[in-house]
Amino acid sequence: MSDAIKSVDGAASLLDGKAAAALIDSRAQAGVEALSGPLGRAPCLAVVLVGEDPASHVYVRNKVKRTEASGMRSIEIKKPADLSEDALVAIVEDLNADPGVDGILVQMPLPDHIDSRRVIETIDPDKDVDGLTAASAGRLVQGAPGLRPCTPSGCVWLAREALGDLSGLHVVVIGRSILVGKPAGLLFLEQNCTVTLAHSRTKDLPGLCASADILVAAVGRPEMVKGEWIKPGATVLDVGINRIDAPERGEGKTRLVGDVNFEQAAQKAAFITPVPGGVGPMTIGFLLVNTVRAAAARAGLDYPAAVADL
Amino acid sequence: MSDAIKSVDGAASLLDGKAAAALIDSRAQAGVEALSGPLGRAPCLAVVLVGEDPASHVYVRNKVKRTEASGMRSIEIKKPADLSEDALVAIVEDLNADPGVDGILVQMPLPDHIDSRRVIETIDPDKDVDGLTAASAGRLVQGAPGLRPCTPSGCVWLAREALGDLSGLHVVVIGRSILVGKPAGLLFLEQNCTVTLAHSRTKDLPGLCASADILVAAVGRPEMVKGEWIKPGATVLDVGINRIDAPERGEGKTRLVGDVNFEQAAQKAAFITPVPGGVGPMTIGFLLVNTVRAAAARAGLDYPAAVADL
Repeated sequence: MSDAIKSVDGAASLLDGKAAAALIDSRAQAGVEALSGPLGRAPCLAVVLVGEDPASHVYVRNKVKRTEASGMRSIEIKKPADLSEDALVAIVEDLNADPGVDGILVQMPLPDHIDSRRVIETIDPDKDVDGLTAASAGRLVQGAPGLRPCTPSGCVWLAREALGDLSGLHVVVIGRSILVGKPAGLLFLEQNCTVTLAHSRTKDLPGLCASADILVAAVGRPEMVKGEWIKPGATVLDVGINRIDAPERGEGKTRLVGDVNFEQAAQKAAFITPVPGGVGPMTIGFLLVNTVRAAAARAGLDYPAAVADL
Repeated sequence: MSDAIKSVDGAASLLDGKAAAALIDSRAQAGVEALSGPLGRAPCLAVVLVGEDPASHVYVRNKVKRTEASGMRSIEIKKPADLSEDALVAIVEDLNADPGVDGILVQMPLPDHIDSRRVIETIDPDKDVDGLTAASAGRLVQGAPGLRPCTPSGCVWLAREALGDLSGLHVVVIGRSILVGKPAGLLFLEQNCTVTLAHSRTKDLPGLCASADILVAAVGRPEMVKGEWIKPGATVLDVGINRIDAPERGEGKTRLVGDVNFEQAAQKAAFITPVPGGVGPMTIGFLLVNTVRAAAARAGLDYPAAVADL
């Protein structure tokens, strides 16, 4: 059994995102080693962070650490919250023009005075390691070579690790965001799944979910998905990360929960991701993988084997 | 009741694509009238046809006729089947650069020696009135302004004409092509439908189809969808056009059928498109609408009201 799957007596096996992320990181590292010779340098990821949001700073620090641990070159550009939109666009354009930069990530959210969409669309699609540009989305729809969004890639990888061939399985995705829901649906479709995209307007969502072999919850509503929504033996991938009050931990305390009621769902599912520590940690892993892929593609080289089949 | 809906005693009402196309064409014509003043000229659609395929020639002749009838300027470029790929790309690049051209359509299929994908991706996304470039697909995924594929747009228009608000309805799309299946799913998602994308690997396709409020068949398999697959009262949109032998009409005779067994399905459905004369004729209507929209957007103008809400 894969290191990423933790068997639990009498309940669903845990899909352990931290262990899975370590596996993905090691693939990225092997890709860096394979590519640095032909490339004449290590692949390079540039991260741009605007403002003082503490969670973003923690996240970027983690990205930089894992980028460097993989053997890649890391560029970190930090700017104050009052940076102008034009100045940020100019930074992205400079990174586009720099032949030594393979991947560009602009940390979201951006300050309110900046049009995030304009900034994202400035990123060269060949360096769009977050898979957020319209060009990357179009390549995904068309099944063309390109960089796929990281969190949905992590979902598909976990499902394949648990179940093997996904062909013919029914995937229900709750949530139709540009970042997760829609690309997750398209990536599972590429795996020959039957895919249903559900959302707040869906009628009889519990009944629909109960028909899912794989349930992806990505709505941002704490513990919305109940145990009775889960088909016995299903695989549950919980993308939600919601902070809720936890008075049982003391006054003013909070804790993180997903979009799925974990205790209930774990009694029905065969495989389930915890929150935190499930899908979340895999996102950076696929960011590293995408940077290796971008470096190879930009140099006209095949993807290194270590990152080709993820 | 709309002119596009023909009530039939004891069976489904017919969604009459020819009548619907006439309505859409008249909207395009009104858009041309509204736009020609501010634009200082009529919108212009350029069609490029390579080779001698008789069906393509018929189709292009029909396009040119309807383009001119709408008051638009039509450019027709016909080239022999041995045109090189580079020469075709150069033609598209010239049309991209011509400020008097608003829409570019390269008639498919192209001769085998030409890479269709390269030719399509050469088209300026702002002139991509067929909605076939990766950029247009990306804009569709992201809900950003852009040109949507014509045949799926016709499907959504017919469904709205029959049913009004589509919010919460379950749409099952059989077929996941880049041209029809995937964009149809994304367009119905924009209408707040719950959308399932099904295909050859889908398990229990009949059972899944029987849960569909709206069934879109786009697989190219003659009369694959049977009457018992249809939920009573459903709306059936048949995108397939298949030529089959029709010995009952005489030796060597053929006829056109859809992906749905029409006789059977009409006994169960509330609304159904015939083949031919259903979804097919609407495609050119939305091509004209897209050309008006492209002309407006390129000039920095709002869409004329006549084509804004289709």
